[in-house]
Amino acid sequence: MGRGLRRVERVAVVEGPFEYGPRQGAWRLRGVTGHERYVTRAEQEELRRRSSGLGRTEATRTVLIPIRKTSAWWELAQDERRAIFEEQSHHIQLGLRSLPAVARRLYHSRELGEPFDFLTWFEFAPAAGEAFNELLRELRRTTEWTFVEREVEIRLRRAVPP
Amino acid sequence: MGRGLRRVERVAVVEGPFEYGPRQGAWRLRGVTGHERYVTRAEQEELRRRSSGLGRTEATRTVLIPIRKTSAWWELAQDERRAIFEEQSHHIQLGLRSLPAVARRLYHSRELGEPFDFLTWFEFAPAAGEAFNELLRELRRTTEWTFVEREVEIRLRRAVPP
Repeated sequence: MGRGLRRVERVAVVEGPFEYGPRQGAWRLRGVTGHERYVTRAEQEELRRRSSGLGRTEATRTVLIPIRKTSAWWELAQDERRAIFEEQSHHIQLGLRSLPAVARRLYHSRELGEPFDFLTWFEFAPAAGEAFNELLRELRRTTEWTFVEREVEIRLRRAVPP
Repeated sequence: MGRGLRRVERVAVVEGPFEYGPRQGAWRLRGVTGHERYVTRAEQEELRRRSSGLGRTEATRTVLIPIRKTSAWWELAQDERRAIFEEQSHHIQLGLRSLPAVARRLYHSRELGEPFDFLTWFEFAPAAGEAFNELLRELRRTTEWTFVEREVEIRLRRAVPP
């Protein structure tokens, strides 16, 4: 949805200060991990209990989806965003269904002045590919997704072991 | 509280991309404005109705307070942070009492890898100085403030008209 990114042969994932990221390449996206913005304590505990870590040997399929939401989303108050996120769109509950098969991590980019607000990252074994596709289809049908104005789906396979 | 910043004669406030900020000086703090993290729609509307803008001619007193919270704060879930912020500490309600005399703006720094999580900025006329001091005293007595591990109070007077 929205403007895409140039198609590339490979993507380098670099951890560390931004300054050390690769300067070459068709594009470069930056994000930082951080505290959780919407989940309650009970949800946080369930997510942690059921999540798997990144870097499992069998998780050879990875997907990077940078997302930007509309200004209307960011102008909402916290209680309104939470209500759309979970009570209306069941974002957390949908995500829980794909655990532990789909491991994931969220990076925040909005505060860095990046073109996207978030970088979402997923890792799963080939056998979990259909469960992941179903998760994506369900999320894109939600009210929350009516606030997404740009989204690029980048499907990858690991070239090197994690 | 915590380590201070070197005492300086003057502070330059620069708006724009970070790259353009001054490179000289004893220290440099960066932050970005952004969406509201805790307020409900009703609180947001009341805050907007009662707030005054930055840059009033009579607001010759300005205060910059960079703040860092503990890792224990950031590990809390959203509902726990909101409960401490408002239901226990009445952060919004305390702030409303000083409106419209004290104009303010919050900048977020945590995501930028800065030494502080927030830069808080206040502007008021000399006559509102005591009201501002009372607001500070009250906030520092709250449960929320037990999660503050570093805070530097920088009192300024405008050298140039806003």
